[in-house]
Amino acid sequence: MNDHVRIAARTGLAIDLEAGDQLRVVNTHGGQVVDTWAFAREDSSEYLSMEHTRAALERLVPRAGDPLLSNKRRPLLRMVQDTSPGIHDTLIAACDPERYRTLGVHGDHANCADNMNAALTAVGQPPRPVPPPLNLFMHVAWDPVGELTWHPAPADPADAVTLEALAPVWLVLSACPMDVNAINGHSPRGVDVERMSARAAAV
Amino acid sequence: MNDHVRIAARTGLAIDLEAGDQLRVVNTHGGQVVDTWAFAREDSSEYLSMEHTRAALERLVPRAGDPLLSNKRRPLLRMVQDTSPGIHDTLIAACDPERYRTLGVHGDHANCADNMNAALTAVGQPPRPVPPPLNLFMHVAWDPVGELTWHPAPADPADAVTLEALAPVWLVLSACPMDVNAINGHSPRGVDVERMSARAAAV
Repeated sequence: MNDHVRIAARTGLAIDLEAGDQLRVVNTHGGQVVDTWAFAREDSSEYLSMEHTRAALERLVPRAGDPLLSNKRRPLLRMVQDTSPGIHDTLIAACDPERYRTLGVHGDHANCADNMNAALTAVGQPPRPVPPPLNLFMHVAWDPVGELTWHPAPADPADAVTLEALAPVWLVLSACPMDVNAINGHSPRGVDVERMSARAAAV
Repeated sequence: MNDHVRIAARTGLAIDLEAGDQLRVVNTHGGQVVDTWAFAREDSSEYLSMEHTRAALERLVPRAGDPLLSNKRRPLLRMVQDTSPGIHDTLIAACDPERYRTLGVHGDHANCADNMNAALTAVGQPPRPVPPPLNLFMHVAWDPVGELTWHPAPADPADAVTLEALAPVWLVLSACPMDVNAINGHSPRGVDVERMSARAAAV
């Protein structure tokens, strides 16, 4: 049986996956960044790590077929399919209250760091430090001298990335609420996810 | 009073700095990578963060004059001087036992992750998860499509980076023991550090 869940704009969701389960992250309306984390369910100190993944791939951005490594260099996920233009970010921290203060926002603002921990709390997991996320669909471009520029996510409506769990994980997603810079086209929206269970597929 | 300390090849060192203290990291023999971390002494959950620093600088690599931010977006350090070619890395995880196994090394191998925690333990601090380091002098080049390549550190003998503490920190350095790939010219060596105390300078 496949599960379908909608993640509302500016919110997060934690999903438990078994090894072999796949999660399809659908950019329903296009142009939306999705911050993504994974935490090993059997070892709370192990999590998806961008700095270990970059070292293993010898590339800034993963592509379809690539394993995504934990901080213990174990492949926790694999990006099995990508129907988007293949633009994703591994460089930039999740947005958080201080990020919005720095950008001139007064008062509270939804943010990916709080979304991550709210999503974990909602499934009975303790809050934890926020690792560098895999920012699906996010377009931060680098130039030859390393200058970074922020651009609208180039994903079209219904573009999707499919991630396969290689170990039991909590996968956490946040439909990024950033509306101050251009990464979500100044209009953060929701996304859809579909879980394809390995057990169901084998039946 | 200035303190001078030698960090032997393949080892690490933790140094407590007060706000205003400067530490000069000297590439004594040239060509040596130095993995660098900072931990706020007054808040054990706050540490130097490459993903927050890149977002603030809008650049992959810090330069002289740049603040280096914590995971709470507070400037913990400033790179005040750099007499090297300015090539440093913020992308790659510290080497660890699993990294050497992956590269085909059998048996134990000195590594920056263990060096970080051994250095903290030596000054009475508990071991902790290893954040992505600031890899001083390390040359990992990126190309337009994001492919990464490892090169020998281009620092000449006596090239130096000076870091100023902007808050009380434990600064941890590791003379990187990597001898399997080319980053240390296959010949890891020691470095020298000089602490310039703000208090002494003010007398």
